[in-house]
Amino acid sequence: MRSLRKTLLLAVVVSVVVVLALLHSWPTRGYPTVDVWQRRGPLLSDRSLEDKLAESDHQLSSIPIRVRESVASLLSRNSCICEGDSGGLNLPFSQLLFPRVSAHSLHTAFKPSELEELKRRRAQEYQSFLKRSQTPADVLIIAEANNPLQFPTQGVEVRPLKTIIIPGLALHDSPRERYTVNFTVALGTLSVAAEVDGVRVKGDGENHMTITSLALNSLNRQLQFVTYTNTLFHPSTADTVQFETDRHQASFVIKIRHSTTPKLYNTGSKQGYNVSALVTIATKTFLRYDKLQDLIDSVRRFYPTVTIVIADDSEQPKSISGPFIEHYIMPFEKGWFAGRNLAVSQVTTKYVLWVDDDFIFTANTKLEKLVDVLEKTTLDLVGGAVREATGYTATYRQTISIEPGEEEGDCLHVRRGFHHAIEGFPNCVVTDGVINFFLARTDKVQQVGFDPRLARVAHLEFFIDGLGSLHVGSCDDVIVNHATKIRLPWVSQSESDKTYAKFRYPSASSDATQTKDRLLYFKNRFQCLTRN
Amino acid sequence: MRSLRKTLLLAVVVSVVVVLALLHSWPTRGYPTVDVWQRRGPLLSDRSLEDKLAESDHQLSSIPIRVRESVASLLSRNSCICEGDSGGLNLPFSQLLFPRVSAHSLHTAFKPSELEELKRRRAQEYQSFLKRSQTPADVLIIAEANNPLQFPTQGVEVRPLKTIIIPGLALHDSPRERYTVNFTVALGTLSVAAEVDGVRVKGDGENHMTITSLALNSLNRQLQFVTYTNTLFHPSTADTVQFETDRHQASFVIKIRHSTTPKLYNTGSKQGYNVSALVTIATKTFLRYDKLQDLIDSVRRFYPTVTIVIADDSEQPKSISGPFIEHYIMPFEKGWFAGRNLAVSQVTTKYVLWVDDDFIFTANTKLEKLVDVLEKTTLDLVGGAVREATGYTATYRQTISIEPGEEEGDCLHVRRGFHHAIEGFPNCVVTDGVINFFLARTDKVQQVGFDPRLARVAHLEFFIDGLGSLHVGSCDDVIVNHATKIRLPWVSQSESDKTYAKFRYPSASSDATQTKDRLLYFKNRFQCLTRN
Repeated sequence: MRSLRKTLLLAVVVSVVVVLALLHSWPTRGYPTVDVWQRRGPLLSDRSLEDKLAESDHQLSSIPIRVRESVASLLSRNSCICEGDSGGLNLPFSQLLFPRVSAHSLHTAFKPSELEELKRRRAQEYQSFLKRSQTPADVLIIAEANNPLQFPTQGVEVRPLKTIIIPGLALHDSPRERYTVNFTVALGTLSVAAEVDGVRVKGDGENHMTITSLALNSLNRQLQFVTYTNTLFHPSTADTVQFETDRHQASFVIKIRHSTTPKLYNTGSKQGYNVSALVTIATKTFLRYDKLQDLIDSVRRFYPTVTIVIADDSEQPKSISGPFIEHYIMPFEKGWFAGRNLAVSQVTTKYVLWVDDDFIFTANTKLEKLVDVLEKTTLDLVGGAVREATGYTATYRQTISIEPGEEEGDCLHVRRGFHHAIEGFPNCVVTDGVINFFLARTDKVQQVGFDPRLARVAHLEFFIDGLGSLHVGSCDDVIVNHATKIRLPWVSQSESDKTYAKFRYPSASSDATQTKDRLLYFKNRFQCLTRN
Repeated sequence: MRSLRKTLLLAVVVSVVVVLALLHSWPTRGYPTVDVWQRRGPLLSDRSLEDKLAESDHQLSSIPIRVRESVASLLSRNSCICEGDSGGLNLPFSQLLFPRVSAHSLHTAFKPSELEELKRRRAQEYQSFLKRSQTPADVLIIAEANNPLQFPTQGVEVRPLKTIIIPGLALHDSPRERYTVNFTVALGTLSVAAEVDGVRVKGDGENHMTITSLALNSLNRQLQFVTYTNTLFHPSTADTVQFETDRHQASFVIKIRHSTTPKLYNTGSKQGYNVSALVTIATKTFLRYDKLQDLIDSVRRFYPTVTIVIADDSEQPKSISGPFIEHYIMPFEKGWFAGRNLAVSQVTTKYVLWVDDDFIFTANTKLEKLVDVLEKTTLDLVGGAVREATGYTATYRQTISIEPGEEEGDCLHVRRGFHHAIEGFPNCVVTDGVINFFLARTDKVQQVGFDPRLARVAHLEFFIDGLGSLHVGSCDDVIVNHATKIRLPWVSQSESDKTYAKFRYPSASSDATQTKDRLLYFKNRFQCLTRN
């Protein structure tokens, strides 16, 4: 009896150990490895169709054409050229009435000796970036004509590792003895959610599946239940489905991605616009506490409870007191865009209003108007107007476009002006860049960000970084005053003004321009900036 | 003579006035207005194909099917249901070995009286969000079978207000007397970049164009030069092209958008990894200067020149001295995620390493390994492991998925674990959320951000906000130590520890949970959170 008990005990101990060992190794079994290396994988493409196209191209290329310059000249060149306007009239006010375009090659910001290495490194970083951002959903796919296959060309999506029914599949073939279609995918498996009599399915649960039937209607009934399951995880990619039948094929893409999670703000009750609940004012200050206090006092006359966020990189920061004021101290001279990025990173309201620390609010600074624009339109940011002491009011509207380049980089084109007026808002237009007085959706501004590598003078770089994601507007009927910068000879400059000027307008001001140019060259991969 | 001179002078003055007036009004003439209001516009859809599909659906629906539960159950339900695991064994260690899933309905974070209004407001904000983010490029399009039209189904893009040739257009029709195709677009105009003899083009430069020829080859030669010009500006949208011929039609989309401007970092020379040039360490501190100093000292043993960015919202901030240290003072108690967002907003290197202020670097904290992973793979963020005083090491890997819901909101599912191992990095896996010790691409982390509305306890919210945009990994062979939290009874708690504990673990700790739940409910539009 005793030895039996011993044996039993031993058996139990051994099984427990085995079970624990199994459980310990469990998580790694059955989890295939995934290759996330930055290698260029084969992008499935419809080779036979490309061949067909090349063939027909060959037939057609013998037919003569007459090029229409007016249209052909609008197409992008292979690589952009860095050139502005040459010559032109040199009349007085000509720059004002007919602003000439100047072109600036950005590689000149670097020493010639370092340029070679820099270009190589930039190309390398750019290749990595492309591998991380491109997917099969961007590839050109052309549907062949007279294809008996019916299939979805757009709009098919599955969340990572989930399953969907592929919609819209069918075969509309001429009568034949037997009908066969097959599917091939790369990042998942195929199956059917329901079975139909008289239809044979081969490869169920694999990445290649064939469906056969003698009756076309039965085949098409089966095709209403083909499923795709993503099995190779990636948070944002696409799988290409090769769909084939005898002598014909089609390619289409299934996007594999999470839905975009919204970032909504609770705006409180909707009777009128409660500016304090909707808007936070953000600004950066440096050595100009007097001007900053003037700004705060002027804001408080109209908006006594709106939160003001202040990023401060002064050398000996003073305390700024008052309710609804958030004061952030930064390392001395950390910089302009670093301060802007800090300030907006702290905003918890739906909208953020950017102001410079030397603005003055007046009765014309009706923030409710700007809120109205963003509440009612799809704009993400709307600029106002800044009035100088002279009465001159600026909106600084800029349109921005990028012309693709090749190895040298792209060309950045900036022009004064705007695209369209906005229906329903007669004082407002759509543009790409505005003056430093604007209201914007907080989540969009935080997403674009102000690059902390820009320490001194910078402005447009924010709008360049926002190109494509910010929908920008500008209204000229919401005006803020600018505390004068004009140095009146009979007014002595305050000490803080003098120190400020030393930093803001350094004698080596070309340093700031060089930093900006270097950043445009490397970070954004531009070769050229043209502007008027 | 005098009156002549006077008349001349008058004429000149009048013309100058007229010219100035013209120039003043010039910018608005010829700029059509654009409707950017948040109205739901008609999304062009292929109505006759939908009718055909409905028709064939009707024919087929009489054919019986046998549903396969194993596959059908994988498809998403119309609306997710908030439920966890019920019952289950109540053995010791059962939660450890077989973690049960708990489900939490988020609306319970609100008072029932406010819920109605809240849901209404959330739905409204969500509708606005959809109008700003959806485009015709997301709509389901199905290509009809046996279509003589050949056309591009994917990959056609034009930059805003620019012109492209539409690739891949052709007609492969049976012989007939005359061949005609036509095009219709909504956000631009059509034209041809070259002309072909024997082909008539009608509507050149308009949004509807017809091309006719007696010879099929000539028509197809002409179709190689059809151009699309975007004229209605929007920074990121799509136009649907209706392409038709006798009794057949096709729809495809032209994406209208700027290219994604890269944000590249100059990483310096590539011989080995220069951690100081590539990485900035970021942390947030609150009332624990002793622990913070321990962290800094431990970092300096291994990385004497790496920049450490510290966000500090302590009540009486102390100065933190030392080279390569950036210390930011925040308003008292501003909060955890506000501090995290501040710290990462200041980083100027390619990568940012997040650490908590009570971590201790050891010889196992090899940052070069984490850099190697991000340099070689498409991952955006890679977590390490945190070792407690007991020797227990945690990686806190979490997978996150979202199941769509309807009016009530979506369901958020969080599970411990990961998706795959990573080829070439045997200690690393791909997952969705990791522990608070990770290296990440600075531009991606800044883009996702840490929501400053989360003042106290929060962690996963960052990874939830990053879902779909962050490709996340976790390696367990890069380890940082955690200064012990275990309260040993014979060791008296320091004063700062006591004050810290008061804030970090408040008696009303349900407040922090309530804040997080409310945010998940309103901001991200969830109804339910399930986790194990």
